[in-house]
Amino acid sequence: MDLHTAVVIMAGGAGERFWPRSRRSFPKQFLRLSGSRSLLQETFRRALRLVPAERVYVVTSFRHRDLTLRQLPELPPGNVIGEPCGRDTAPCLGLAAAVLQARDPEATMVVLPADHLVSGEERFASALEAAARVAAGGRWLVTLGIAPTRPETGYGYIQFGRTVERVGGWEVRAVRRFTEKPAAEQALRFLASGDYLWNSGMFAWKASLFRRLLAEHLPGLAAGLERIAAALAAAPGPAYLEVLQREYEAFEAISVDYGLLERAGEVVVIPADFGWDDVGSWSALERVAVPDERGNVLRGQAVAVDARDCILCGVEGGSRLLVAYGVTGLLVVDTEDVVLVADKARSATLKQVLDELRRRGLERYLDDEAVSVRGARVVEKPWGREVWWAVTDRYVGKIIEVRSGHRLSLQLHRAKLETLLFQRGTGTLTLGERTLPIEEGLCVTIPPGTVHRVEAESDVVFLEVSTPETGDVVRLADAYGRAEGDAAG
Amino acid sequence: MDLHTAVVIMAGGAGERFWPRSRRSFPKQFLRLSGSRSLLQETFRRALRLVPAERVYVVTSFRHRDLTLRQLPELPPGNVIGEPCGRDTAPCLGLAAAVLQARDPEATMVVLPADHLVSGEERFASALEAAARVAAGGRWLVTLGIAPTRPETGYGYIQFGRTVERVGGWEVRAVRRFTEKPAAEQALRFLASGDYLWNSGMFAWKASLFRRLLAEHLPGLAAGLERIAAALAAAPGPAYLEVLQREYEAFEAISVDYGLLERAGEVVVIPADFGWDDVGSWSALERVAVPDERGNVLRGQAVAVDARDCILCGVEGGSRLLVAYGVTGLLVVDTEDVVLVADKARSATLKQVLDELRRRGLERYLDDEAVSVRGARVVEKPWGREVWWAVTDRYVGKIIEVRSGHRLSLQLHRAKLETLLFQRGTGTLTLGERTLPIEEGLCVTIPPGTVHRVEAESDVVFLEVSTPETGDVVRLADAYGRAEGDAAG
Repeated sequence: MDLHTAVVIMAGGAGERFWPRSRRSFPKQFLRLSGSRSLLQETFRRALRLVPAERVYVVTSFRHRDLTLRQLPELPPGNVIGEPCGRDTAPCLGLAAAVLQARDPEATMVVLPADHLVSGEERFASALEAAARVAAGGRWLVTLGIAPTRPETGYGYIQFGRTVERVGGWEVRAVRRFTEKPAAEQALRFLASGDYLWNSGMFAWKASLFRRLLAEHLPGLAAGLERIAAALAAAPGPAYLEVLQREYEAFEAISVDYGLLERAGEVVVIPADFGWDDVGSWSALERVAVPDERGNVLRGQAVAVDARDCILCGVEGGSRLLVAYGVTGLLVVDTEDVVLVADKARSATLKQVLDELRRRGLERYLDDEAVSVRGARVVEKPWGREVWWAVTDRYVGKIIEVRSGHRLSLQLHRAKLETLLFQRGTGTLTLGERTLPIEEGLCVTIPPGTVHRVEAESDVVFLEVSTPETGDVVRLADAYGRAEGDAAG
Repeated sequence: MDLHTAVVIMAGGAGERFWPRSRRSFPKQFLRLSGSRSLLQETFRRALRLVPAERVYVVTSFRHRDLTLRQLPELPPGNVIGEPCGRDTAPCLGLAAAVLQARDPEATMVVLPADHLVSGEERFASALEAAARVAAGGRWLVTLGIAPTRPETGYGYIQFGRTVERVGGWEVRAVRRFTEKPAAEQALRFLASGDYLWNSGMFAWKASLFRRLLAEHLPGLAAGLERIAAALAAAPGPAYLEVLQREYEAFEAISVDYGLLERAGEVVVIPADFGWDDVGSWSALERVAVPDERGNVLRGQAVAVDARDCILCGVEGGSRLLVAYGVTGLLVVDTEDVVLVADKARSATLKQVLDELRRRGLERYLDDEAVSVRGARVVEKPWGREVWWAVTDRYVGKIIEVRSGHRLSLQLHRAKLETLLFQRGTGTLTLGERTLPIEEGLCVTIPPGTVHRVEAESDVVFLEVSTPETGDVVRLADAYGRAEGDAAG
């Protein structure tokens, strides 16, 4: 692809469809659903067939920035484009276009959702290259359509018209109509017609054309993007982040399909034939995995005794055991803090369960996969993890693991007693004016109000025991995100 | 009851029927299935309606001795009769008879299984008092029969005959026939006949009569019991334990019903009318609990969304959440390390699942409810618990909780580094020749080879970090059991 072409991976996502495995803190794109890599990692790997890593960008929420970089160590950290909040795909891609244009006004964007599965990667790469070439001409918003193989009611459809051009063996077709998720009967007609394609959510266009068309069809969004772009051009620091946050939060949540593609005349579609699945719900596992002779899909440590046609997802890598006995047609998902047992046929309507949990004040089970075992709670953090092994009236005890290269900044103003016992790793402990090297066996009791900071050279593990004070504990948990910040571009 | 009467609670049990809640290390009788007390605690409470705590005995396996005493703090420790292994009810009650006669040759035993539910406790106490009075005459083995309320195929039945005597308003009837678990049709006939009773497993007899009849019908068992009794009379120490172990292991496993009651002529039955349930499988929960309007029985933190006729047992007291969505007729049991999803109708045949797990080398899930969460493993101990939060090449980190009144004795001969950080509680730390008071914040690094001992006055919590050495770690885990030992009588 030419040097102006960049791949933009959209890695937003609410983390609801694969609950309880996915959470708000760990949405679908970060999950390993098939094989050893996450959907995001697979998407990144496919992107590298098209462009080098320096020209791959990932748009994701601020809170998933570290997780993204951890899963994609080859991705330049500056290529993570942080979204302050979720506003659907039109603002997401508008922001990406603005960031890309700040680096290269002639940029062409190839857009890939992070959470889809693709098979037939040669064809995939060929189709995307064709799309990028058409897009680079600057005339079209190019969409990729997939020949439907079943009357799926969960997807959007694109009806194609005449051939506009041929590129690299691919037909580029005019678009006659977009249809959002159809009814079952309509989906059957679409499948039979031969001129309807699934809207894959993969696109290619010049950033300049995209922004011009946004200005035409979504002028409010375009104006906000101008202000964001101006702040970024001025200085990509805290001032920019402030503008980004303010403008982005004010955007209407709207999809690029509904907001732009269905309205603009400049849209074409390339009918593609590689294997594609948007993995929209748990039942998709039956398409991407090979069920056993009784129709069961087993993941993790799961044992089926006389069970049929079930999806059984045990906790992977843990020691929990999932056993199904004499049951049929169930979806069972076990995690560190939630087990879901559902009628498999209802896996697409999981939202009802999540709504019920919200009604019951159990929303925390949507946020994080927090582990609590008779007092020992394991919380994954961007910088490592905390094991809360005791929270009592008199003290809070935690084991804190800080990964190499990260630092932890905290101030415990009102704590009456705090003891740190270092077990492993090297680095620096700052205590007010003093600095101590971290080493195995270092044990420090910290007077109330002393500022202290742990910086890990190699992975550091220490025990922390402190008087419980809610305010302090909250500050500790938040410390990293605030200290490091998140930046776009 | 007269001063010769003692209650013997049989608290053996393999821990299989309520798997995965029950385990070999934590059988059914220790479970809280209804209300806030375990079945054993409820049985003990009922026993106290009949005799004072000094005359209540509990027969249980050596390994459950500490658990028994923890659940029954009022029980004199000397009243736990330890079984070296499980040999069914005839050897169990033979041993109890021998131990009771060593204290009182005229003893009358009232036998109560530890794992049944009873309602109507006035009637219960009245019937057992009548049984004890009849038994004290020394002529009869008295059984308690329950008027059946359904054609249960899981129980044994007793057909009664003519009235032998009347005691305290109760008829004492001759026994015509014992029938083990009948077929469904036979059970229906028994229910209709009016002269069949459920064999409740509750008995009363003079220990001397029981042993005389054992000698007649199970002479091998009786002879072994003589040798055990002789060793106990000589000295109730290690020599006795050695004899007990050798003799007991050689006993044939046989039930008192099959081995004696069905053969002896000296058996009567008191038809009783209180509420009784042997809680033989998970589905018994539907009889002992009140299902919600959709027929669901919910325990722990469980949420049913559009679910019907399910038994949903979440982990109690933990933070795990169990969610059932759109399912019917399921038994779901969540624990710290296993989740079972079964057809409720198959809850009585759980053994098939356990056999399958044994075949697959997953027997450890039958033994202990061990908790392992990404490195943090919680192990319940007789003296408290250990949270293993890290096992690495370089160190083992544990949080050790020692309950008040217990002590922990350990020697880590070859450890290179061991640090203890005390967080809570009071007591004494012995280090070689020195003794230190335990207090919050005490941090001690122990040189290799130094004998140390922790004695807890109040509950003590401390962190222990040591160089991993398998031998040492094993010794630590075993330390308590060896120090205290287990003794019968």
